[in-house]
Amino acid sequence: MENHRGSVTAGKAIRCKAAVSRNPGEALVIEEIEVEPPKSWEGPFAIFPRIFGHEAVGVVESVGEHVKEVQEGDLVLPVFHPHCRECRDCKSQKGNGCSVFGYRLNPDMPRDATSRFKGMNGEVLHHFLFVSSFTEYTVVDVAHVVKISSEIPVDKACLLSCGVSTGIGAAWKVADIEGGSTVAIFGLGAVGLAVAEGARLRGASKIIGVDLNPEKFEIGKTFGVTDFINPATCGEKKVSEVIKEMTDGGADYCFECIGLASLMEDAFNSNREGWGKTVILGVEKHGTPLALNTYLLLRGRSVTGCLFGGFKPKSDIPLLAEKYLDKELNLDGFITHELSFQDINKAFELLLQGKSLRCIIWMDN
Amino acid sequence: MENHRGSVTAGKAIRCKAAVSRNPGEALVIEEIEVEPPKSWEGPFAIFPRIFGHEAVGVVESVGEHVKEVQEGDLVLPVFHPHCRECRDCKSQKGNGCSVFGYRLNPDMPRDATSRFKGMNGEVLHHFLFVSSFTEYTVVDVAHVVKISSEIPVDKACLLSCGVSTGIGAAWKVADIEGGSTVAIFGLGAVGLAVAEGARLRGASKIIGVDLNPEKFEIGKTFGVTDFINPATCGEKKVSEVIKEMTDGGADYCFECIGLASLMEDAFNSNREGWGKTVILGVEKHGTPLALNTYLLLRGRSVTGCLFGGFKPKSDIPLLAEKYLDKELNLDGFITHELSFQDINKAFELLLQGKSLRCIIWMDN
Repeated sequence: MENHRGSVTAGKAIRCKAAVSRNPGEALVIEEIEVEPPKSWEGPFAIFPRIFGHEAVGVVESVGEHVKEVQEGDLVLPVFHPHCRECRDCKSQKGNGCSVFGYRLNPDMPRDATSRFKGMNGEVLHHFLFVSSFTEYTVVDVAHVVKISSEIPVDKACLLSCGVSTGIGAAWKVADIEGGSTVAIFGLGAVGLAVAEGARLRGASKIIGVDLNPEKFEIGKTFGVTDFINPATCGEKKVSEVIKEMTDGGADYCFECIGLASLMEDAFNSNREGWGKTVILGVEKHGTPLALNTYLLLRGRSVTGCLFGGFKPKSDIPLLAEKYLDKELNLDGFITHELSFQDINKAFELLLQGKSLRCIIWMDN
Repeated sequence: MENHRGSVTAGKAIRCKAAVSRNPGEALVIEEIEVEPPKSWEGPFAIFPRIFGHEAVGVVESVGEHVKEVQEGDLVLPVFHPHCRECRDCKSQKGNGCSVFGYRLNPDMPRDATSRFKGMNGEVLHHFLFVSSFTEYTVVDVAHVVKISSEIPVDKACLLSCGVSTGIGAAWKVADIEGGSTVAIFGLGAVGLAVAEGARLRGASKIIGVDLNPEKFEIGKTFGVTDFINPATCGEKKVSEVIKEMTDGGADYCFECIGLASLMEDAFNSNREGWGKTVILGVEKHGTPLALNTYLLLRGRSVTGCLFGGFKPKSDIPLLAEKYLDKELNLDGFITHELSFQDINKAFELLLQGKSLRCIIWMDN
């Protein structure tokens, strides 16, 4: 997606390769597809066939009518989290919701709920999370696009388009961690490690990582993790008890980065009285509600959830890019693997095996 | 408790009248008791016989050894919520916990877990919430005493020793309501009305009171309540749906002032996306956990609990007293009845009948 042909393609359909998901659970198939051009400006989760992918970077090939914010040749991040800049939520200093583009069930283009993709046989291929980056070309609404400095290498830039920004935002915007704080992070995937990186940059004195994969401690250290708990080796002790012992009564900030109500509860129970704050980042996998002991709540604890780490994409992501260019923010450590587009299914294997944090998929080789 | 005899009684046991609770549910009995003097400096909930009462004002009769903070003749509020001023929690700007005096099960004197009360037959009468104000004389640890200006009339001062401070603190310290905000309050007792008063003073644009007692709307208006919902007359609509309609999507701040997990959930569901904050003040009556829909949480909502409204008693109550003296804070409206000590059981009847907000019990007539 780095090369662009400008007006050669503007307004015309483009034929290109895409990794198409034809059925749930099956390997992706790289096929030639046709991508319709952007229309004048421009749901849910179990629609097939579709094109997955929501962390990416790209160069603008062409824009639809009325779009002024980006132009051909701009380096941009597509983001699932909308930011229209015009609604009450986007204009507010509180929160990062967008009341115009909100949370929609239809995953295709947000303004007309239609797809811009079709296969060579004419069948509609659906979008995913308003991004669909597993294709050489995609169409994204301008509310889901963030323009960034072209100084940042593309393989680092794409990390900022979801997980890493989410983790750092949760540490900075939602928890607002102060220097000297104690922090516990449930789940040391890229999101959890980004929370650690955010906590490290805020000067947290203790950053406890909780993960069933013991290899996560070594890699966690490069993001500031100071202590590690493997729940499988805690014996009869609850993880929350271990954390309370390590933090003299409970961590100041606990983060759930997995998506299980039982672990959200563990995180809450690991918080100190008085001002303990639990931040929920994980999307609960089974729809199970989070059950809170109200007496623990009354003693000065709080629970907050967030999407995209409370960051407003268009204003906050460029600041993260600056911090990377200033050599403050560790992004390089998230890249554990690189693969060419044709090997995209290997990237999922690596993720499921717990071997990769982020695997860069190079679309042009 | 307003008169004091200074050194006449210092170090000696005092005989006085007290309203003794001899068995759960039974009327209080006013008896002559003996109160031991304060010891050198100086749990749970179903211990009898005991002396109830935790909202009061008094004059210091004598102090124990090493106590410098208050002296004979000082006007003081006893408070169930401790504030030692020395521990990490008390010194922190965050939260209002006290890690030294914390949350104890034994309701008697906190330093030695013994009672200062006994009946004329020598039996021990237990304390209640470290205050026990239903007696002409009581002994309270200095960590539970707040010195206040003698300019404030005693009948207004005593209101600040628990419920009213809790409600105002929840609005100011915990929710930190901004001007123009929308607020929903579940339960318009004195605590809920104090939340409204706090919201009114912060310039909230809409303050919705929710109560089954329709008479609460009229009295609520004097504390800033602008709209009223009686759940009994909502028909098939959920209260949260009504609140969402009234606030264009949900209230910025919701407060539960009753103590039922189901209403805490209603409050949470009445909050707007993006930054909606639910503050739990009620002590859950049955120990039922609060079940939260994690997807609603992820969309930028939070839940916080607090005791004593997040206020640090010794530093914050005197500021409230000042606001009363400056005619900003409405305290007079909370006083609906006044009774003499011998009629104390009538005060409970009025409360249970929903007729009173606060009934002043005059100990000296």
